[in-house]
Amino acid sequence: MRRDKIKIVTIGGGSSYTPELIEGFIKRKDELPISEIWLVDIEEGKEKLEIVGNLAKRMVEDAGLDWKVYLTLDRREALKDADFVSTQLRVGLLAARIKDERIPLSHGVLGQETNGAGGIFKAFRTIPVILDIVEDMKELCPNAWLINFTNPAGMVTEAILNYSKFEKVVGVCNGPIGHIMEESKLINKNPDELFFHFIGLNHLHWHKVYDNEGNDLTTNVMDAIFEDSKKEKRSLNELPFMEEQIRNLGMLPCGYHRYYYLTDEMVKKEIKEFNATSTRAEVVKRVEDELFELYKDVNLKEKPEQLSRRGGAYYSDIACEIISSIHNNKGKVMVVNTRNKGALTDLPYDASIEITSHITASGPKPITYGKLNSAIRGLVQVMKSMEELTVEAAVTGDYGTALQAFIMNPLIPSGNIAKQLLDEMLIAHKDYLPLFKVVIQEMEKSL
Amino acid sequence: MRRDKIKIVTIGGGSSYTPELIEGFIKRKDELPISEIWLVDIEEGKEKLEIVGNLAKRMVEDAGLDWKVYLTLDRREALKDADFVSTQLRVGLLAARIKDERIPLSHGVLGQETNGAGGIFKAFRTIPVILDIVEDMKELCPNAWLINFTNPAGMVTEAILNYSKFEKVVGVCNGPIGHIMEESKLINKNPDELFFHFIGLNHLHWHKVYDNEGNDLTTNVMDAIFEDSKKEKRSLNELPFMEEQIRNLGMLPCGYHRYYYLTDEMVKKEIKEFNATSTRAEVVKRVEDELFELYKDVNLKEKPEQLSRRGGAYYSDIACEIISSIHNNKGKVMVVNTRNKGALTDLPYDASIEITSHITASGPKPITYGKLNSAIRGLVQVMKSMEELTVEAAVTGDYGTALQAFIMNPLIPSGNIAKQLLDEMLIAHKDYLPLFKVVIQEMEKSL
Amino acid sequence: MRRDKIKIVTIGGGSSYTPELIEGFIKRKDELPISEIWLVDIEEGKEKLEIVGNLAKRMVEDAGLDWKVYLTLDRREALKDADFVSTQLRVGLLAARIKDERIPLSHGVLGQETNGAGGIFKAFRTIPVILDIVEDMKELCPNAWLINFTNPAGMVTEAILNYSKFEKVVGVCNGPIGHIMEESKLINKNPDELFFHFIGLNHLHWHKVYDNEGNDLTTNVMDAIFEDSKKEKRSLNELPFMEEQIRNLGMLPCGYHRYYYLTDEMVKKEIKEFNATSTRAEVVKRVEDELFELYKDVNLKEKPEQLSRRGGAYYSDIACEIISSIHNNKGKVMVVNTRNKGALTDLPYDASIEITSHITASGPKPITYGKLNSAIRGLVQVMKSMEELTVEAAVTGDYGTALQAFIMNPLIPSGNIAKQLLDEMLIAHKDYLPLFKVVIQEMEKSL
Amino acid sequence: MRRDKIKIVTIGGGSSYTPELIEGFIKRKDELPISEIWLVDIEEGKEKLEIVGNLAKRMVEDAGLDWKVYLTLDRREALKDADFVSTQLRVGLLAARIKDERIPLSHGVLGQETNGAGGIFKAFRTIPVILDIVEDMKELCPNAWLINFTNPAGMVTEAILNYSKFEKVVGVCNGPIGHIMEESKLINKNPDELFFHFIGLNHLHWHKVYDNEGNDLTTNVMDAIFEDSKKEKRSLNELPFMEEQIRNLGMLPCGYHRYYYLTDEMVKKEIKEFNATSTRAEVVKRVEDELFELYKDVNLKEKPEQLSRRGGAYYSDIACEIISSIHNNKGKVMVVNTRNKGALTDLPYDASIEITSHITASGPKPITYGKLNSAIRGLVQVMKSMEELTVEAAVTGDYGTALQAFIMNPLIPSGNIAKQLLDEMLIAHKDYLPLFKVVIQEMEKSL
Repeated sequence: MRRDKIKIVTIGGGSSYTPELIEGFIKRKDELPISEIWLVDIEEGKEKLEIVGNLAKRMVEDAGLDWKVYLTLDRREALKDADFVSTQLRVGLLAARIKDERIPLSHGVLGQETNGAGGIFKAFRTIPVILDIVEDMKELCPNAWLINFTNPAGMVTEAILNYSKFEKVVGVCNGPIGHIMEESKLINKNPDELFFHFIGLNHLHWHKVYDNEGNDLTTNVMDAIFEDSKKEKRSLNELPFMEEQIRNLGMLPCGYHRYYYLTDEMVKKEIKEFNATSTRAEVVKRVEDELFELYKDVNLKEKPEQLSRRGGAYYSDIACEIISSIHNNKGKVMVVNTRNKGALTDLPYDASIEITSHITASGPKPITYGKLNSAIRGLVQVMKSMEELTVEAAVTGDYGTALQAFIMNPLIPSGNIAKQLLDEMLIAHKDYLPLFKVVIQEMEKSL
Repeated sequence: MRRDKIKIVTIGGGSSYTPELIEGFIKRKDELPISEIWLVDIEEGKEKLEIVGNLAKRMVEDAGLDWKVYLTLDRREALKDADFVSTQLRVGLLAARIKDERIPLSHGVLGQETNGAGGIFKAFRTIPVILDIVEDMKELCPNAWLINFTNPAGMVTEAILNYSKFEKVVGVCNGPIGHIMEESKLINKNPDELFFHFIGLNHLHWHKVYDNEGNDLTTNVMDAIFEDSKKEKRSLNELPFMEEQIRNLGMLPCGYHRYYYLTDEMVKKEIKEFNATSTRAEVVKRVEDELFELYKDVNLKEKPEQLSRRGGAYYSDIACEIISSIHNNKGKVMVVNTRNKGALTDLPYDASIEITSHITASGPKPITYGKLNSAIRGLVQVMKSMEELTVEAAVTGDYGTALQAFIMNPLIPSGNIAKQLLDEMLIAHKDYLPLFKVVIQEMEKSL
Repeated sequence: MRRDKIKIVTIGGGSSYTPELIEGFIKRKDELPISEIWLVDIEEGKEKLEIVGNLAKRMVEDAGLDWKVYLTLDRREALKDADFVSTQLRVGLLAARIKDERIPLSHGVLGQETNGAGGIFKAFRTIPVILDIVEDMKELCPNAWLINFTNPAGMVTEAILNYSKFEKVVGVCNGPIGHIMEESKLINKNPDELFFHFIGLNHLHWHKVYDNEGNDLTTNVMDAIFEDSKKEKRSLNELPFMEEQIRNLGMLPCGYHRYYYLTDEMVKKEIKEFNATSTRAEVVKRVEDELFELYKDVNLKEKPEQLSRRGGAYYSDIACEIISSIHNNKGKVMVVNTRNKGALTDLPYDASIEITSHITASGPKPITYGKLNSAIRGLVQVMKSMEELTVEAAVTGDYGTALQAFIMNPLIPSGNIAKQLLDEMLIAHKDYLPLFKVVIQEMEKSL
Repeated sequence: MRRDKIKIVTIGGGSSYTPELIEGFIKRKDELPISEIWLVDIEEGKEKLEIVGNLAKRMVEDAGLDWKVYLTLDRREALKDADFVSTQLRVGLLAARIKDERIPLSHGVLGQETNGAGGIFKAFRTIPVILDIVEDMKELCPNAWLINFTNPAGMVTEAILNYSKFEKVVGVCNGPIGHIMEESKLINKNPDELFFHFIGLNHLHWHKVYDNEGNDLTTNVMDAIFEDSKKEKRSLNELPFMEEQIRNLGMLPCGYHRYYYLTDEMVKKEIKEFNATSTRAEVVKRVEDELFELYKDVNLKEKPEQLSRRGGAYYSDIACEIISSIHNNKGKVMVVNTRNKGALTDLPYDASIEITSHITASGPKPITYGKLNSAIRGLVQVMKSMEELTVEAAVTGDYGTALQAFIMNPLIPSGNIAKQLLDEMLIAHKDYLPLFKVVIQEMEKSL
């Protein structure tokens, strides 16, 4: 690193998020000596790549920078001698996400594109593609860092670490930063004055908050949250947690905990939305269509305001900050997906975990947390097993392992319903599941 | 041990199982120099104690033995200088079990007196009583061994080990011996020719089977089971497991796994039974009433045939065999609930686990198994966390911890339904939950 | 913390190091709102306390600060409401250190005031005194942080954590900073550009070095060291390590490793010095006497140049920096003695280790390192066992445990020589070993 | 197993121990349906093989058995379809052992053919040969069990498990049985009445003793040992341990602990013997020469009395009993070298350890022991690291790793003396160290 000229490659460059990423780089122009940005996409995404790529070029030019922005469908050309590679792809596009959510809900089961049945299928579709990219990286840019923010980010990181045996990967998610911003505000503190110790898995993490006098403010944040949730009439989307249970945790949960702690209510809410209107995937699709219309405007030279409605706030900011922290050996404390190595003694040594880490030029160093209490330990352990099974099924295409992952997942009812759902989803996604090809063919024959 | 005269104390001596236990001792008269058997019960069970105690006396006399059989309501008198104490009590009697099963089912939730909501409440009622007995033992017979077969046997053992800090306890269950007998028969082998390595928790264990040539027969047993379940038309009670999933486990599950692996079907089956006829608890109650009628017959001098319909086959045989193995330092291999100490590296070092152990005069020594695969690890870990929370709630009476145990339990739907169920059960069982007294009073006030 | 007024207490305030500490505080006057500094000593050290305390007052005044400097023999008065307490005491003064070194050497055994027989006795004398101070702190200033730089710093920290059950302690040593400064210079880098990952125990640590491009420079530092040690004619004090062995380590050793890796040469060297001139303790004593002469000069208003000859460079700088990092929640990366909690999976979870940590207002958070290779693991494990035995003997006064610590220590020959040495040292130090009183009396009787 | 005809192969069949092994098989003729015994040796041992092989044939014939005894130099022919393979070889013969002991002693260092410098070189010579045999077994008799009693048995087992990745190996030693027999006698008990829990490494194990009432007799055995060692005037060979230290251990040490706990005295004793007379190796050599003279007598048809003077009592008995226990799925409790798998949580999961195990047809299952106390933990951990380094050096021929093993070994003084000794021994043994060939050539050039 600390080369004079940095080459950055973004795979899935045609994503609607790209303008935010470009904005993040521009904001850090003084700390990142970028020379080239390569936006890569696949044939299917060519049109979007053109639209968003041209906006990126206008943004860079408008900022008075001499960075070269390349648009390409040739991944290998792009990867050659890259310094940082970011992945923000969606195998099967939003159409696949719609299936991930709709099919489970039609069985009365949570879809949920990261933790539930949908998340398992996203992993099945995504992991083989990412491992392929990593093979290219090993050949074409073995010293580059891979910044993955493709979901399910935890499982993707685990697959890269344990199957590709590639260590220079950081999995990122905007969840933790969202908590940091919101909770700081709730207790009227500046985020910089606080130390947040996050531990767990991607989309299943808990945290403690300390102030700059060393006081544990976790309970104070809980007070503020429960006060707040009583005061305001919250939308259904923000179902209030059960207070006694959360207080018993001793740590603050993340938003995704509602799926685990309030499964019943979440299923009902999603089914209601599903019947009434549309899934999250469909909402996102509409927002995206509108965004690309805006992006086409040749006068647009900055990230449009509307992008914030897409969700994923702070996403690109984290990605750019990770890149800058590695490049500049900042020693900044950030929450990332990385190898455990004992930081959480209750999870396997080699597992990918999401944890507050010290980011250096030689990668993230997780900050030791130690033993988890019973109320946290069991859930994070069962989900890690589920992740391992999912990753294994994704790389082997083994049906029994896939079924086991479904059974293990606390968000999927056990029994034949799990099997029916698995079968239906395998058939629905067959175009993006080459490793399961034979299994699916057998299944279709017997229909 | 190896004293010339053994004093045995059975707490809950008025149980319908007692004749089987007495039969087991009589069968081992040559290896157990028994001098006294004390059957202890509480005021509520006085009548049954009389009936079953007199049968016990007739059985001993009929066998030509000079053992003294005492019936008493004075537990402390009985415990004085005891060598072995067995506990087979049911706090709140079958009436409590009926509530444990009926209340959850009325919410569409599994009752299940050991693993589900019912099991948690059985633990809440039972653990404080057992810990009290252990305090008496520390004072009156500190060198005696406690053979606990009161359910939930795993959690009771964990409470004794980790809260009473009393090490001379063995938790026993007839589940494993049932598997050993049935599976040996299925593959036409003599149980003595096979080595069964059981690991896990009480009512949640897995096992591997080896023959006397060292071959791993686990797959052969699976073949036989799936062959068998296709051949015969099985009753609903024996729902067939999903073959691909079980084969992927690499180990044989236990009967209780149906609750976890086929949750959906099990709930439906139980609700159907619940509506149509009666719960397991109610069936048992009728069988028991009939048994006590038989026991009254002064001409009856042996265990009646009908006892076998009560369930719990081999129970007393295991208890007597454990006592004999400890007394005679047999080095026999049996499956018991005991402290982990590294035998299963994926569970806490101090946890109570159910495992194939070498039984010596200095207690059970678990036979090391090592790491569990992902498909087993997650479930056993989440249940151990649930057990820890349940035991903690049972000894503290803390509402938040109790709620956490409900939420953690994979057999109880998460969300407000868990809380409602918890509250309803607390109120229903209030007479047997002195530690939760204040919590329940507050709850009743707000109704 | 972040109180407007900080009260700092230094126990052993009459130490020759105190001027350096005062200088460190003065240097940080803008980040540390100090209001009071209490220098505490015992009757025996009263004269030195006066001398050094008056110099401290002149230094503060000369810096134009309004901090109040108190000199006292009343520890409890000083501790009341303290914010930071530092301990730099020497039970038995330098006279004890001279015995620690002379007695072993007279048997042909390394003395070594931290790792060898001398270190064990320093622990025996010091730990009970420190635990007493901690008891006072629990009562008088329970929220204060204890910054311990009394040797053996690792064992003292372990005793405080595991016997006093007091968590707000940081053990510090100037060893790591010495390596950081020297090695940076050797490879012509600025220390700020490098990341040093130190792991191990106090006076027995290893480290890896990374540059700000993420490259592992450990081998480059080795190259420079071995190049350097060939080039220059090194004094005996800097015995060259065996190159093949060090390279096989994969990590850089610390200076104290010579005792373990070159035991034979080190013994010979020390015996030679012992015969020819004097021990390290005696050299230090002369330097100290000279220093106190200088300190008496009422015109001296700053730390005299000669203090640097005393050894212990950077000591006070680290102590002051730790205090500032905690007070200001700096998140600085420093090497400290703190509780392991999984950062080194090969050492006990609760052990005190010396490790690169992230320093926050809520204390040091060790940066996870993971598994150690065979070449490092064994030595650090045997020394941790030795430390545990030493600490246990120090708090119990048990002779067998003390003997076991001697036998376990790789720097003390096993066999009766260990026992003879132990006995001789117990008698020599009896005035400072109240817990061993009975043992020593028995011993003296049998002489 | 449980085949009708068992084929046994003994590699190193020309050993003086073979008659004892044959006697062991004859004694178990009713439980072992042996059909063929193959005695294999190398060209150098041809003459001894003839002598001892013919005695074996006479013994079998005299016992009225129809077993076929084959003598061969063709290892691969012998291994074809074997059921059990035992290895009792000595690479370099006794001449090498003499060097292993003489060279270190000439530097004032313990030789010791298993734990010290001699043991490291025995590992260097032996491990590559054994791994070669294992490769043949994988091809020619993959289902056979390898019973290794070639020293250093622990390191050889570790090499087979972790480098050959071959699981069907049991390492055996006669040390534990010796303790069992002697200590039972000391406390006037029958060994069958006691339970010995051995844990540790080969030639470095500790144990606890329980009687058949479950009482821990460890202290009683210590009493008897110290009583006994005071009463009788013991020979130098039985240096008394230091009582306070041993009592502090809480477990009984093994004979080899004298090397670690009384290093100083042991070195002196060995040097004295070395100067006065001869090493253990040389004594053994004379005994062996006499034995082979006896074996030649065609009228000798049984194991001669004089073999007991050779040492290694019970050796063949253990080997035969292991074979019978595996073959007959006996479930017998024996002490063997096998994979840890969590039985000792303080040693690596995959390490070979020596531990009381339950022997079944599917191999030894270690009986969980749990955590070790500080006084035991450190020594066993440093020796396991030393073993790992030794095994790694043996399979790689890496000089730095070999030097590291020397430095780590507590029986070898650290410093240049270790290096000089290593170098001298490498040159002395060069004919049997093909993997170190280049290293040695370089070394010789620079002489």
